[in-house]
Amino acid sequence: MNVPLIFWLVPIAAIVALVFARYFFVQMKAQSEGTERMKEIASHVRKGAMAYLKQQYRVVTVVFIVLAAFFALLAYGFGVQNPWVPFAFLTGGLFSGIAGFIGMKTATYASARTAQAASESLNRGLRVAFRSGAVMGLAVVGLGLLDISIWYLVLDYFEPADGGQKLVVITTTMLTFGMGASTQALFARVGGGIYTKAADVGADLVGKVEAGIPEDDPRNPATIADNVGDNVGDVAGMGADLYESYCGSVLATAALGAAAFSSVGGTVQMNAVFAPMLIAAVGILLSVIGIFLVRTKEGATMKQLLGSLGMGVNVSSLLIAGATFAILFLLGIENWLGLSFSVITGLVAGIIIGQATEYYTSHSYKPTQKVAQSGQTGPATVIISGLGLGMLSTAIPVITIAAAIIFAYLFANGFDMSISATSLSQGLYGIGIAAVGMLSTLGITLATDAYGPIADNAGGNAEMSGLPKEVRRRTDALDALGNTTAATGKGFAIGSAALTALALMASYIEEVKIGLLHIGQTAIDIAGRTVNVVDATIPDFMEYYQVTLMNPKVLIGIFIGSMMAFVFCGLTMNAVGRAAQSMVEEVRRQFREIKGILTGEGTPDYARCVEISTKGAQKEMLFPSLLAIIVPIAVGVVFGVAGVLGLLVGGLGTGFVLAIFMANSGGAWDNAKKYVEEGHYGGKGSDTHKATVVGDTVGDPFKDTSGPSLNILIKLMSMVSIVMAGLTVAFSVL
Amino acid sequence: MNVPLIFWLVPIAAIVALVFARYFFVQMKAQSEGTERMKEIASHVRKGAMAYLKQQYRVVTVVFIVLAAFFALLAYGFGVQNPWVPFAFLTGGLFSGIAGFIGMKTATYASARTAQAASESLNRGLRVAFRSGAVMGLAVVGLGLLDISIWYLVLDYFEPADGGQKLVVITTTMLTFGMGASTQALFARVGGGIYTKAADVGADLVGKVEAGIPEDDPRNPATIADNVGDNVGDVAGMGADLYESYCGSVLATAALGAAAFSSVGGTVQMNAVFAPMLIAAVGILLSVIGIFLVRTKEGATMKQLLGSLGMGVNVSSLLIAGATFAILFLLGIENWLGLSFSVITGLVAGIIIGQATEYYTSHSYKPTQKVAQSGQTGPATVIISGLGLGMLSTAIPVITIAAAIIFAYLFANGFDMSISATSLSQGLYGIGIAAVGMLSTLGITLATDAYGPIADNAGGNAEMSGLPKEVRRRTDALDALGNTTAATGKGFAIGSAALTALALMASYIEEVKIGLLHIGQTAIDIAGRTVNVVDATIPDFMEYYQVTLMNPKVLIGIFIGSMMAFVFCGLTMNAVGRAAQSMVEEVRRQFREIKGILTGEGTPDYARCVEISTKGAQKEMLFPSLLAIIVPIAVGVVFGVAGVLGLLVGGLGTGFVLAIFMANSGGAWDNAKKYVEEGHYGGKGSDTHKATVVGDTVGDPFKDTSGPSLNILIKLMSMVSIVMAGLTVAFSVL
Repeated sequence: MNVPLIFWLVPIAAIVALVFARYFFVQMKAQSEGTERMKEIASHVRKGAMAYLKQQYRVVTVVFIVLAAFFALLAYGFGVQNPWVPFAFLTGGLFSGIAGFIGMKTATYASARTAQAASESLNRGLRVAFRSGAVMGLAVVGLGLLDISIWYLVLDYFEPADGGQKLVVITTTMLTFGMGASTQALFARVGGGIYTKAADVGADLVGKVEAGIPEDDPRNPATIADNVGDNVGDVAGMGADLYESYCGSVLATAALGAAAFSSVGGTVQMNAVFAPMLIAAVGILLSVIGIFLVRTKEGATMKQLLGSLGMGVNVSSLLIAGATFAILFLLGIENWLGLSFSVITGLVAGIIIGQATEYYTSHSYKPTQKVAQSGQTGPATVIISGLGLGMLSTAIPVITIAAAIIFAYLFANGFDMSISATSLSQGLYGIGIAAVGMLSTLGITLATDAYGPIADNAGGNAEMSGLPKEVRRRTDALDALGNTTAATGKGFAIGSAALTALALMASYIEEVKIGLLHIGQTAIDIAGRTVNVVDATIPDFMEYYQVTLMNPKVLIGIFIGSMMAFVFCGLTMNAVGRAAQSMVEEVRRQFREIKGILTGEGTPDYARCVEISTKGAQKEMLFPSLLAIIVPIAVGVVFGVAGVLGLLVGGLGTGFVLAIFMANSGGAWDNAKKYVEEGHYGGKGSDTHKATVVGDTVGDPFKDTSGPSLNILIKLMSMVSIVMAGLTVAFSVL
Repeated sequence: MNVPLIFWLVPIAAIVALVFARYFFVQMKAQSEGTERMKEIASHVRKGAMAYLKQQYRVVTVVFIVLAAFFALLAYGFGVQNPWVPFAFLTGGLFSGIAGFIGMKTATYASARTAQAASESLNRGLRVAFRSGAVMGLAVVGLGLLDISIWYLVLDYFEPADGGQKLVVITTTMLTFGMGASTQALFARVGGGIYTKAADVGADLVGKVEAGIPEDDPRNPATIADNVGDNVGDVAGMGADLYESYCGSVLATAALGAAAFSSVGGTVQMNAVFAPMLIAAVGILLSVIGIFLVRTKEGATMKQLLGSLGMGVNVSSLLIAGATFAILFLLGIENWLGLSFSVITGLVAGIIIGQATEYYTSHSYKPTQKVAQSGQTGPATVIISGLGLGMLSTAIPVITIAAAIIFAYLFANGFDMSISATSLSQGLYGIGIAAVGMLSTLGITLATDAYGPIADNAGGNAEMSGLPKEVRRRTDALDALGNTTAATGKGFAIGSAALTALALMASYIEEVKIGLLHIGQTAIDIAGRTVNVVDATIPDFMEYYQVTLMNPKVLIGIFIGSMMAFVFCGLTMNAVGRAAQSMVEEVRRQFREIKGILTGEGTPDYARCVEISTKGAQKEMLFPSLLAIIVPIAVGVVFGVAGVLGLLVGGLGTGFVLAIFMANSGGAWDNAKKYVEEGHYGGKGSDTHKATVVGDTVGDPFKDTSGPSLNILIKLMSMVSIVMAGLTVAFSVL
């Protein structure tokens, strides 16, 4: 073992994160859960959520076993894959699953306690909800870095290679555990997304529209399922999504660093590998500080509440920005100044995308107000204007990411646009480290995200337990805040997914290299030159596999990648539609068959609705998820490396833009409805309101199922390609 | 002049097309226009359409003068462009404009005559409508080939270069006239699309929904504007779109042929240039035969009507397939058999995409029926299921195009997947000639398209003139048929746009080459090798400009291209929303201020509605159209050749898929509504019907404005890049 002292900061930070997660959890559990009624409702939601998780993990386990067996076959049977892959794959999935479990458990314990705390004061409500969200945030980053540290130590111990190659092999092997995290995340996002929206749409269509009872009314049989859904989709789904981006960005950057400096080797190379891990580690410590800064005073306005959360995030961001310079300087990295600016580029890009998302989806601004206004001419114009808004809203994030790419690239390679082998590998490393920068505050930004559904559920609990109006008013304020942070968080998740996917694409080339060596090919012929695979650069591989835009394999890959984004969304949209349909029928059945539900005398069968949503989600999530795994393999087998890179780029370009479009349209519709409910254009119950409710219902699968799932589709396709690189280079038809 | 005899077949075919266009026009004019009332209404629509066209051409003329002046400056002032460009640009626009004028004039003369003929018999109605549509089809292909022939002769006479280079210069120069056609087409599609949907949505929202009067009721002030809109959008817009694809595919393929065989020169090269023109020419002659075959018997069912049109198209296609083998064999092209199969590939791909479009959008099939069914749970589920359907429907067309690319490529280069310089240039030529194959039947397929709005207007005329129900029933049958052929035609337009855009991208490289020579750069350095620009191959340029998927400039270009597709759609969707809003207000004002409109005693001010739509469309079309022109220039200036190719590929991949999604969702919503109106799920007036009307309204801008405009966006961006290649190579920031 030649692990330097500084490396130990990484597992230490991971453990600090987990310790604080536990601390916040225990602190939350010590709060009062309120009245018996509140406890009972919370227990219903908790049981429903756990039942869902159990069912979900059962299905996912089967998928993992099958895939791990397949990888074992490739690794041990055909020798086209690294022998560590099956195990790395399994731990990635396992750790991500544990993070989801912790987050969900915390969230379901926290909702009643938040309602109870809110009945005392707004500040106490905010604190309980936010610190419970922080459990999720810290669990994700802690488990992520822990898994990374353990694997690094294990591989460092076992890996026989020496010199510059050793770190290359270690980092590319570690990267494959990202596929486990991706696969888990996909099922969590897709399954959770279908669950939550089936329950939501089902509850709304029959409860609100047909039976005319308000949101979160205990007479609605689907209301518990709806509350479960918030946890399933927004806590577990979002957590798994960002767990994966977080690990993916760190691992891909480490792999790019190892590759960029493989000919130099020694400390220079090792520092390039450790830099992203250390930035992440320090980010954890500074996020914890930020979490403690979040507090507000009683009677705070929306703006002040937002300010409290913003305070925590901004202070953490600033501290991390400063710390980055220190870390890279102290590591003795030659271009520490440039790389620090690459990190800052990522941080700034994340903030800009978040702000743009808020502008387009908050009803404090014109775009969403215009959607509300268009409700005056009926639902059709609400839909048209919402779609138009979403499409236009893609401009700023795309331009921001484009600018981030170019700046992170140029900062990292000393402003060299010539795209030589060196400038390219250093520049791509810069893009990777920008993604790490964007995600370094994840401990706290994820807390602001996971806090939303907790506040939402607290409101549901307050409503169902018949707490005083004042409490509901406070939880509503917390919930509204959660909607804004959720929108920002989604922008953030998408932006980081794009940069991470780019870094993954670049490290795919490294996997191809390892794959070639693995099957015993030590040299490649490029236009007459013979190049050793070990020494081959990225431009060499581009030339060898002819990954240019004029290669029909690349073009076909791009077409299929673009298509995949749309088909995947279409499948998940339809899945929500079908699952919601069974929910509608069940709720109607209960209203019909169980006597006295509407008068409050009969008790609805909540569990049955939970079960229906769970089963629907499990059934519907399989096909789109498997498609996301199978298509990259198929494209690799038929069209080879050129086709795969085309697929990834096409999927990334289209998927990124489509995801922003769907998330923002959905967010704007949601808030346009809220804007009307606040009394504009006739207020609640008016025709304008009804029109905006249609928009909101369409927006549900947009923003909570299909849109966010695209983030993972993009990353998972890259991860699958990375893991399958060995198969692709050993065998492809064309 | 060394023009071989066989070339003259091209202008002759063009003239034959124009002669038959004139013949069908005169034949149609000789028919009775019916009663005074019918004549009056037709005259309203005709005047409105011509007023629109006049206004449109006025705006477009200004844009053309500005752009031509800009090109003249680049060509004569800075010397970074071919001196012919300004003139080629102007004629492209002029000829496309003339084709639009002829088509529109014919359509507006034909509607009353079709209604009158339908009052005699269904067959007579079909014949008048279809042959009037054929005027448009033949005018488009005739004028297109005529412009190509004239320019070829002019350039052949003036061009000083000699040997293999002469044809290269001629063909790349001719290609730039495509930009004129593209620009004209963009304004026609965007302006026409906004016009027609503003009028349609406005007429529906106030007339049908608020005032409760039926479609095409003369009491609705917007009804004439609505009828004008069908001509403006579907006749002139579609015609200009396909004029551009037609010329673009022929010219790009000719340029690719000249380049592929430039080192061989002589007859071999000349034949490669003539082959696409000759296939197009023979296609015209065989289309005329097909047109004469379209007829039906009285009391024909929908299926029989469809069969009649199909008969004409299918016979033409088969004849062209056969003729292709003969032409290429007789030309003495070495790989005549392989290239013939490339052509067939294009033809077959067009048919498959058309069939898939029909499957997804016709209410004879399950997908659209399911959308109708989802109306039972309200408008939100109609929207969700329609969007889901559209997204899923992208799979078959994308896979078809991907297969067409690979097969056309392999057939053309003797199944060489190695992507050498030779196999690449021959393979790309194969892709180009596949596009020519797909469009070779345009004379008749466009007739089946332009026929739709004529039948639609005939129905409007019959309604407004109070003709017997039987007549309306017949025109309705013709109209329903038109809806199906329009959906197929849209699939066709999109598919051909994709292949054409690919061919244009490939010929962009040739323009870059000419651009380099133009600014006096005769050699390029590639990784130590020095290559003469004249001898440089496509792989050489890919390497020189590093057009690989790992180049950040390429990646940024792809991101921006993907974004452009969405932003462009967002702009046009919002434009329709705004223009429709002014229409709604105007119609409401007339109902309020003009006494007795609803009782039939007052006459609505039709002209005012036409004027509002016209002005709205003109105002709204400018910004998105200019964006489509400016962005490729800006990307070229900042990111150079690599960025431009990224932009084109990103725009093509995303734009193609997005266009299919929008067209099919829109088509399915339209027909789902019709399905309910036929008596399913409660029929007309039921809640389900109201829900599907919402879908139809959302679908209007989808299928008739934003979706089809994307075809042109894709091609125009390529054309702008081609014309600007000189500027890009002479100057770029990064």
